[in-house]
Amino acid sequence: MPGTLGIHHVGIAVRDLDEAVARYGTLVGGTVDHEAVVPEQGVHAVALRVGDGPLIELLAPTGEDTPVGRFLAKRGEGMHHVAYEVRGIQAQLDRLHAEGVQLIDEAPRSGLFGLQVAFIHPEAAFGCLIELVEPKEQPHA
Amino acid sequence: MPGTLGIHHVGIAVRDLDEAVARYGTLVGGTVDHEAVVPEQGVHAVALRVGDGPLIELLAPTGEDTPVGRFLAKRGEGMHHVAYEVRGIQAQLDRLHAEGVQLIDEAPRSGLFGLQVAFIHPEAAFGCLIELVEPKEQPHA
Repeated sequence: MPGTLGIHHVGIAVRDLDEAVARYGTLVGGTVDHEAVVPEQGVHAVALRVGDGPLIELLAPTGEDTPVGRFLAKRGEGMHHVAYEVRGIQAQLDRLHAEGVQLIDEAPRSGLFGLQVAFIHPEAAFGCLIELVEPKEQPHA
Repeated sequence: MPGTLGIHHVGIAVRDLDEAVARYGTLVGGTVDHEAVVPEQGVHAVALRVGDGPLIELLAPTGEDTPVGRFLAKRGEGMHHVAYEVRGIQAQLDRLHAEGVQLIDEAPRSGLFGLQVAFIHPEAAFGCLIELVEPKEQPHA
């Protein structure tokens, strides 16, 4: 499909970010690329660089009644989502909506790390939560 | 960590490969890169190319009493593992073993698509099954 550039990151839900960051250093040499707390999404995230290519995004909830908190209560720690970088995120969402794909977000919203993001429902993708991301346009100098 | 090149693929367990391949085409433009049945591992796999970078590996079981069959019975369809490409897979496993990391495979075995592979136990990585892969050495011409 024109417009999908590839996997941007893999999201993993964990309870203790510090332990997870240390462990990923041991396991696969992950190093912290950036970190953010987004209270309105109830998430504390650390993006790890592991070699070249997509990042690993470790996600810890800021409380139990948050999306990641509810995920942990239901499923436990583990793989949470796969994010794909796209061009023209609204056009992609419109196309998917027209094809009858179950979306969580019909329009992009502000996500972590300065990205526009939108989620596709896991029911649409065989149990896998898919995130589409697109960097926000930078103002021209 | 020297030796980890990055994410090689993301494995997703599904019940119906044909449906999943078609759906990934719609969702993110995935196209079939290669396909294999490995009876001794009880798996039928299709590797999808999605833009540049890591592949998506769709995994369907060849029967219920297989690793992927048991995963589906316990967890349902969804994200199954993250594979990282490494150099020196045996040395990596020896290092992890020495650090007390719980391994499924202490030595690499033959995996899909001509790779040497070894799995790290999900308990060692916060519920995420990690696979290390390394292309087999090619005979010199």
